Amino acid sequence: MTAPFDFTPLLAPGTPAPAVKWTGFPKYNFIGGHNDAKHVPVDALIAAATAVLKREGATLATYGLNSGPLGYRPLREFLAGKLKGHAGIECAPDEILITSGSMQGLDLVNSLLLARGDTVLIEQETYGGALTKLTRLGVNAVGIPLDGEGLRLDLLEQKLDELQAKGVKPKYIYTIPTVQNPTGAIMGEARRAELLKIAAKHGVMIFEDECYSDLIWNGQRPRSLYAMAGGEGVIHIGSFSKSIAPALRVGYIVAKWEVLGRILGLKQDAGSGALEQMILAEFCRQHFADHVPKLAKTLAAKLQTLREALAEQFGTAAEFGDPPGGIYLWIKLPDNVDTVKLGQAALAAGVSLNPGPEWSTNKEHARSRLRLCFANPEPETIKQGVAVLAEVCRREFGVPLRSANVDSAKT
Amino acid sequence: MTAPFDFTPLLAPGTPAPAVKWTGFPKYNFIGGHNDAKHVPVDALIAAATAVLKREGATLATYGLNSGPLGYRPLREFLAGKLKGHAGIECAPDEILITSGSMQGLDLVNSLLLARGDTVLIEQETYGGALTKLTRLGVNAVGIPLDGEGLRLDLLEQKLDELQAKGVKPKYIYTIPTVQNPTGAIMGEARRAELLKIAAKHGVMIFEDECYSDLIWNGQRPRSLYAMAGGEGVIHIGSFSKSIAPALRVGYIVAKWEVLGRILGLKQDAGSGALEQMILAEFCRQHFADHVPKLAKTLAAKLQTLREALAEQFGTAAEFGDPPGGIYLWIKLPDNVDTVKLGQAALAAGVSLNPGPEWSTNKEHARSRLRLCFANPEPETIKQGVAVLAEVCRREFGVPLRSANVDSAKT
Repeated sequence: MTAPFDFTPLLAPGTPAPAVKWTGFPKYNFIGGHNDAKHVPVDALIAAATAVLKREGATLATYGLNSGPLGYRPLREFLAGKLKGHAGIECAPDEILITSGSMQGLDLVNSLLLARGDTVLIEQETYGGALTKLTRLGVNAVGIPLDGEGLRLDLLEQKLDELQAKGVKPKYIYTIPTVQNPTGAIMGEARRAELLKIAAKHGVMIFEDECYSDLIWNGQRPRSLYAMAGGEGVIHIGSFSKSIAPALRVGYIVAKWEVLGRILGLKQDAGSGALEQMILAEFCRQHFADHVPKLAKTLAAKLQTLREALAEQFGTAAEFGDPPGGIYLWIKLPDNVDTVKLGQAALAAGVSLNPGPEWSTNKEHARSRLRLCFANPEPETIKQGVAVLAEVCRREFGVPLRSANVDSAKT
Repeated sequence: MTAPFDFTPLLAPGTPAPAVKWTGFPKYNFIGGHNDAKHVPVDALIAAATAVLKREGATLATYGLNSGPLGYRPLREFLAGKLKGHAGIECAPDEILITSGSMQGLDLVNSLLLARGDTVLIEQETYGGALTKLTRLGVNAVGIPLDGEGLRLDLLEQKLDELQAKGVKPKYIYTIPTVQNPTGAIMGEARRAELLKIAAKHGVMIFEDECYSDLIWNGQRPRSLYAMAGGEGVIHIGSFSKSIAPALRVGYIVAKWEVLGRILGLKQDAGSGALEQMILAEFCRQHFADHVPKLAKTLAAKLQTLREALAEQFGTAAEFGDPPGGIYLWIKLPDNVDTVKLGQAALAAGVSLNPGPEWSTNKEHARSRLRLCFANPEPETIKQGVAVLAEVCRREFGVPLRSANVDSAKT
C-alpha cells in the first residue's frame, strides 16, 4: 500500500476552502441563473447539430476549427448582426472574441487591467461572481449605490473625486446597465450618455456586462454604452446562457481590436468548445429572433407568479419591484431578517436562494435582502417554494406575521 | 464622434504582447496538436448528438446539467471505466473533474499549488504551453534532462538534493510519462516506481499529464503513475483532444477527493461546455474503443511517411527516433541551424513548425531541434512540406547539403 501523502503543506497561500460534494438540486430552485427547461429548443438544436456537423464536422480536427483563436466565425458573424440590431453596436466579427461563458469574459478583462491593490468601481448591488473574482484578485471593489435606473451618477462622481484626491485612479467602472443584476433596472439613454462623459473625463474604462439584455418583456432597450461610445473606452461582454441555455458555456467580448488583440494574447486555452459554438451559430442564425420573445413571455409570466406568491405569503413583509426583464427578483424583508441565516434554514427545507450580502458591497444594506431566480421552477413549484420559504422565515424570524392562507396551505 | 480613449495606462503590469490577427492555416501545417480530419467521426457524432439531446436536452436549462460542478456524470463514468482498463486507475466518478481542455487542468493545478517565486521540476523537453503558463506565473521551472525512457532519475535526485541544500522545496514534478511531448518516450514501470519513491521521499507532488497516452501504436502501456501510487501524491490529467478532436475542449483531472474538492473550489467558470460533454460521452460509450485504434493506425502510417520524407530530403542532416505513439516527431538538425529562425523562414514558405527552444528549458540544447506534428497533413502534403522545409533550410543554413532528389522536386 502507498502511504498517504499530505499535500496541504504544498498549497498556494490563500487557496479557498474545498468545495462540498454536490448532492443534487433542491426541490425549490431559486438560485443562480438556471432557466426554463421547457424552452430549451431541443429539436432545433438537434437539427442544427446535424446540419453543421454534416457540413463542417471534419474541421474539428484543427484547434479553432477554420476560424482562428477569436472563435467560430459564423457565430461571430451572427453576433455582429444581432448586436447591431439589438444594442446598436457597429462591430466587425474580428472585434468579437468568443469566450467560455461570460465568466471567462470577466476573467480576461480582469487579467488585462487589474493587479493586486487596484481599485474598481462597481454597482453596490451586483453579480456575486464578479465580486468573488475581485476579492480573489485582491482588488478593492468600491460600490456605488443604485436607484431605479441603476448607477447613481452623483455618487459616482463624488467617489471618483474622492479617489482622485487620494491619488487613486480606478481601472474600470463595472456596470450591468440593461436589466441590472439583481435589481432589474434599465439605465436610460440620457444617463448612459452622462456616465460615458464622466468615465472619459476621469480616464476610467467602462466594463459593460449585458448578460440579461435579451430578456426584456417589451423588447425595448436603449443603445448599449459600447454603441454610444463607438467602442472608445468601453469593453462589452454578453452571453447565451440566459437567452438559450446556461449549461452552454458560450459568451463573448466586444472590444476595439487594439484592446481585443491584447485580451487574445492573454487567452491561453486553445479556444472555446467547438461543438457549442457550431451548434449555437447554426441554431441562432435561423431561430434566435423567434426563440427569445417566446422565452421572455414565459419568464414574464413566471415573474408575476412569483410576485403574487410573495404578496400572498409575505404580505407587506416583502418589498419588491416589477422588473422589466431578466430572471431575478430582488426582495427586501423586514430588518430583523438575516438572509444568510434564512438561506441556510431554507435550504434545509428544500428552498435555495441567494442571500443579499453575497450580491452587494454593502453587507449591512443587503442584510435583509435576497435574490430569487424565477426562471427554472414551474409556476406551481414557485408557489409552493414561496410558501415553504415564508414558513421557514416565520419560524426563524417571526415574519411574515400572518400564517399562510388556505390556498397555499393545501400545496 | 467619440474621442479616442487611450487604455494603455490602465493595463496590468506585465501584460503580454497583443495577438496578431489570424490569417488562416499555413499550407503545410506541422504545428500544434492538430489531428487527422478524415478520422473525425462525423456521422457517429451526429448520431450521438441526436440521441443525447433527445433524451436529456431539457437539462441544458440548469448549470452543470443534472450532474453538478464536476461535469456531466455519464462522461465521468465512461472515464472511470476507460482509465481502469487503460491506465490501471481505480477511481470513482467523483474523483474526476471535467475541464475545458487539459489546458484548464494545467491552470487549475497551478492555481492550487503555485505562488510567484515557487519552484517546480519539469522534463527538460516538455509541452510549450506548460512552460508559458509557468513563466506567466513567475514560477521557476527547473528542467531535468531526458533519455529514451523519459526523466533521468539520477539527475532528478541530484537536483532535488541540490534544491534541498538551498532550502528550496519544489511544489511538483510535471511529467508526461506516456508518449512524452515532444520526444515520444514511454517511461517503463520500473522507472515509474522509482520516480514515485523519490517524489514521496522529498514530499513533492507528481503532476502526471497523459494527453497522448491513448495513441500508442501497439496499444501497450505501463500503468499510470496515479494508478501505481493509488492516487497518493499524484494529480493526473488527460484530454480528448488527441483521441477524438482538438477543437473539442474537453479534458479531465483525476485526483483524490481531498485534492479534487480543493481544485473544484478554485474552478469559478460555472462548468465546462455541456454539449461537448454530452455528445462526447454518448459517442465514447459506444465507439471510443473502436475509434482510437483506427486513428492510431493512420497516425502510425503518417509518422512513417514523415520519417521517410525527412530521410529522403535531409539525409543524415536530420536525426530523429521512431516514437511508439503520439502525433509528434522531435528532430535534431545540424548545430548551425537555429530553428527559431528556420521557423520564421519556413512560415513564409507555407510551412509551420514548433522550434525546439519553445519546447525546452534548455534553449541552447534545443536550439537546432524542432517538433513536427504529423497528424493533420495528408501523406502527400507531408512529403511536399518536408521538401519545402529542406529547401528553406538549405537556403538559410546551407544544410542539408544535397539537393532534393528528382521524385520530390516534381511535387
